[in-house]
Order: sequence, then structure tokens, then C-alpha cells
Amino acid sequence: MIKVKSSTYVFDNIVYLGGTGTSVGPLEKEGPLGETFDRSYKDNYCGEKNWEKAEQRLLDDAITISIVKSGLLNEDIDLILSGDLINQNVISNYVMRDYEVPFLGMYGACSTSMQTLLTAALLINSKQFNNIVVAASSHNSTAERQYRYPTEYGNQKPETTTFTVTGSGAAVVSNKKSEIKITSVTIGKVIDSKQNNPNDMGSAMAPAASDTIIKHLKDLNIEPSYYDMIVTGDLSEIGSNILLDIMQKENYNINDIHDDCGKLIYSEDQKVFSGGSGCACCAVVTYGFIKNLLLKGKVKKVLVVATGALLNPVMILQKETIPCIAHAVAFEKCDD
Amino acid sequence: MIKVKSSTYVFDNIVYLGGTGTSVGPLEKEGPLGETFDRSYKDNYCGEKNWEKAEQRLLDDAITISIVKSGLLNEDIDLILSGDLINQNVISNYVMRDYEVPFLGMYGACSTSMQTLLTAALLINSKQFNNIVVAASSHNSTAERQYRYPTEYGNQKPETTTFTVTGSGAAVVSNKKSEIKITSVTIGKVIDSKQNNPNDMGSAMAPAASDTIIKHLKDLNIEPSYYDMIVTGDLSEIGSNILLDIMQKENYNINDIHDDCGKLIYSEDQKVFSGGSGCACCAVVTYGFIKNLLLKGKVKKVLVVATGALLNPVMILQKETIPCIAHAVAFEKCDD
Repeated sequence: MIKVKSSTYVFDNIVYLGGTGTSVGPLEKEGPLGETFDRSYKDNYCGEKNWEKAEQRLLDDAITISIVKSGLLNEDIDLILSGDLINQNVISNYVMRDYEVPFLGMYGACSTSMQTLLTAALLINSKQFNNIVVAASSHNSTAERQYRYPTEYGNQKPETTTFTVTGSGAAVVSNKKSEIKITSVTIGKVIDSKQNNPNDMGSAMAPAASDTIIKHLKDLNIEPSYYDMIVTGDLSEIGSNILLDIMQKENYNINDIHDDCGKLIYSEDQKVFSGGSGCACCAVVTYGFIKNLLLKGKVKKVLVVATGALLNPVMILQKETIPCIAHAVAFEKCDD
Repeated sequence: MIKVKSSTYVFDNIVYLGGTGTSVGPLEKEGPLGETFDRSYKDNYCGEKNWEKAEQRLLDDAITISIVKSGLLNEDIDLILSGDLINQNVISNYVMRDYEVPFLGMYGACSTSMQTLLTAALLINSKQFNNIVVAASSHNSTAERQYRYPTEYGNQKPETTTFTVTGSGAAVVSNKKSEIKITSVTIGKVIDSKQNNPNDMGSAMAPAASDTIIKHLKDLNIEPSYYDMIVTGDLSEIGSNILLDIMQKENYNINDIHDDCGKLIYSEDQKVFSGGSGCACCAVVTYGFIKNLLLKGKVKKVLVVATGALLNPVMILQKETIPCIAHAVAFEKCDD
């Protein structure tokens, strides 16, 4: 049975999270979630000759690990959905050369992880597909030089800035029963709260996160306490506090169950300003740490809400504000 | 009934092409298909103060026209899938601020039109959605300055170059019966034939087009003559000839039924080098000219194969080759 309510789609024991793969850079490995990642590199080049190739390697790692851990071969995969931050999705496009698998590129900035996952869930639920790989990647150095300044400048940054995660996370979404099921998804709308500071994307994204979370709760007629954990993608410190304030004003208290991937991935003594961001942030935390919490039974129901700031540098120079979006996916540990 | 064969998905009288919308610049209006477009502008600024805003207006036009011509309101639309060539999909992202509709950004370069259309068809076929808008846009001036040189340079170009179409095409994909149905789709794989000349994308994309067309024919066990017309996206002159050669070598003769949107959209006396390209090329030709041919009964079955070159300028500087992709959608005029 399929229920459609506004922007939320509910799946009835038909969409499962298969194997996942995560591969990260050295800073992420040193962080508090270091033990939850499948693979890591000692420097940001990851054994490659430039940063773009390094990010390609991270993405390739994550996809391969997710397929291997699912006990599948590439030919068992019906479709790959993948995206990244680098102009025209080239990291995904170039990695796909090595996979003989149908491919659709997606872009939702840092919401790409849950955007690809929710699309795969809808397609698996349609019974037209058996196994779909979803993936997202980012790299601190490829993102810095594209969005900000030549990395060598070493520009000073305000404390509101977030730090792009170096890594990639991938997952197989399948109709084959596993220990974790995907129970519903909420597709976000673009929300522009008229903020224009690209060095404070957490504040810009918080209203998109609250919009999607509230829509999800209303569509399903549930309270926040339905979930053991509501995790946002990468609002980081400042954006997280704004989200909690907005939710409070709308009479939803999520203070005790909210966390943010951008806050979880680095420790306070790591020099990352307001916290982590980038497509990989929500991807590696969800497919590593949160998956582990579910498998160990420490949480049973989790809502992951990936947020994205949909700008580019030209738009900022043209004095435009920053449109944002948030997509939500609900995970649940299956009963034994 | 749903049949899945490799990369091809078949729909049984359940997915229809609703209203379509096209909006173009002056050169496209002056071309041989000028009469088939819904709206056009007298200059490339389209009444806006910069080219990015002009492209946003074209996209907004196309989406609005497609919804209006479907007899729908924005609140009847379950989802919008849209993409463009400008870094990080900003044209689509910024236009979406004005639509209160769930949104997923997609990127397939010039294959984006059929990529969004096939994804919508799969989702409509899943019976989870009623009406999905798909859209793609490009603008000669936004693309030129991003991919090549500052437009003011007026650089000389080789004859193999294609000319980015200024325009946008959109369509409503629906479960409501209309005069045209979508009967099957084939999702492409990334094919890199090791070409590295960004001024000859037609040659680079031809092998991706042949791969998808042959897969489509084999998956469905049909001959090319099943279709009255097989139209590629924007291989233009040089790429089209390469495609016909490859097909011939593989024992498929499509010479008499093949045409190319990049060749159709401009006349020989318009100074466009090898022909048209850009996300809008396949979109405006399909949603204008080809739709009209179907409606008038001049053709009954058409396969549209949109092609995309998945590069960016940094990759070319890093001496990488150009990965390409092609996605196919089959249209059929419904019996009266």
C-alpha cells in the first residue's frame, strides 16, 4: 500500500537499506566518528595527483564498498544516483565511466545524500527496480578553490563558516529485506529566507530544515517524539540553534532528540569554525554512525534531514540571496 | 504491467505527456522551428538585467505555460524535476523559489530534458504521483562565459563547435490520458570514448547515443523501423554523421528516420557552426516541433535520445577526456 500525503511518501515494508560504504580524509578519521568509517586516507590527496581525482577515489571507494557489503556485483545494480558539489557534477560523472550501470546525476548541494536516497526509495517502492546505489561526495580542497579563493591564499574566515567534509558515503537501496528499513520520505521545497552571507549557510538553511521537518510531522500526523533522533545534515552550531528556535515557536520541541551531522563529525578542538558541511557530511555520518546506532538498537527510529544551500559564487556577486532546501528520510530498525 | 529489461522500462497506457511549454530567444524564433514555440523574446536579455536572470525567465515561462496548458494549478503539481548547465544548477534552483512545489534538481548536461522526463515517467508509472513537471534550460550567453571565454572576447571558433540554444522547454508528465503517451524509456550509462576536444562535443557524444539506441532496440527486441523517427538531442552535423556510421557498422540502418534537434533548430544560413546544443535544444524541439508532429499524426512513434557531454573546464585543463551519456524516451500518438 502506498500513501501519498502532500510531500510525504510512506513505504510499507518494501524499501530497505542494504550495504553502505564510507571513505574519508584524515581530519574526519581523527574526529569523534573516526571508527565508524570504512576507509580513510592519511592526506587529502588520497594517493592521487590532484584533489579532483582524490574526490573521485573517495566516491569510487564508497560505491564499491556499498556494493561489496551488500553481497552484490555491479551487474546486480539497476541504477546509480549520485551527486557532488563540483561544477556540473563532474566527480560523479567521471567515476561513472568505470561502472557499466545506468546513471542519473542529481544535484541538491549538501542535501544530495538524502535527495538521492529518497529518489531511490520511491523507485524501489515502485517495484520497477531491485537494487539502486545512491552516493554523494565532497572534498574540502576542491570545494574551497571553487567556491571561495585559491586555497593557497589562506584567507581568514568568520566563525560562522562551515568546513567542507572530505569524504563520500554510498548505500544500496533494495527491495531485499535487511535490518534497517526506510519507512517514509519527505521531498523538500526551495525556501529563500533572504539571507545573502555565503559564510553563514547554517542560518540560511535552518528555515528549509524546519519547513521539511514540520511538513513531515504534519503529513504523518505524528509528534517529534515518534523519533528517537532527528538529525539535520549540516546546519552546524549556529544553524542548529536557529532551527531549535524556529521549531519552538511553531510549538515543536525537538531539543532533546535533535543532533546535526555537521556538529557530530568533528570535535570541538578540531579547527572547523562552526562545524562540518558538504555533500559528504550527512552521507558519511548517516551511512556510518547513524546506521551503527540503528543496528546496535541504540535508536529504533531516526529521521535524517539533509539540508542544502543552492547558491553559486556568481549569484552572490549579483547580490542574490541564498535559496535552500531540505529532504527527509525516515529509517527504522526492523523487528527481529 | 511493468516490464524491466536491462536499462529499459516499458509503460502500459499509464504515462502521458500533458501540456508542454517552450520559451526561446530571438535566434531560435527566427529559425525554421520558430512557429512551434510558445513564447519568444526580441533580445537575449529577455527583459531582465543580466543573462542569468534572462535564463531564469525562460525557465519560469516554460514551466508556467506547461502547467497552464495542462489546465492545472501549481498546487496540482506533485513534484518538479529540473536542470540546467549553469554551475550547481542555479537557474533551476532560483526559479524554484517562486514555486511552492517539492523539487529535485537533476544534471545530465544536454541530456537533462530526457533525464528529467524519464525519471518522471518512472515515478508516474509507480502510481505514487499524479502530475510531475519536468524542465530544462540553457542560454547562449550564460553558457559561453562559463564554459569558454568572457563573451566580449569574441574568440574565433572551429567549425566543429556547437551553439548553445537560448530557451527552455517544460512538460507535465501525468497519469491523466492525453493524446500522446510515453511508452518506454532507456536510462543511459556513462561512455567515455577518450575524446578531449571541448569544441567538438558532437563527436564525443555520438558513441553514447548509439549505445543507448542499440540497447533500447535490443531490450525491446524491435527494429529501428518500429519508429517513424529517431531524434537525437544535439549531436549536430558532425556527431550525427558519426552516429549513422556507428549504427551502420552495428547493422542498424537509421539513415532515413534519423534527425537531430541541433540540426533542426537552426537553418543553414544562421551562423551556428555545426548546429545547436545546450539543455534547451532537445527540450524545445521535443516539446514544440516533435509534439506537433505527433499531434498532427505526421508521425505515430518517435524515440527521442538526448545526449550530454559531462565535462567541466577544469577537467579539460587537467587533460581529462569527455564522458558522455544519452537517455531515450519513446512517445506514441494515442489511438483516437
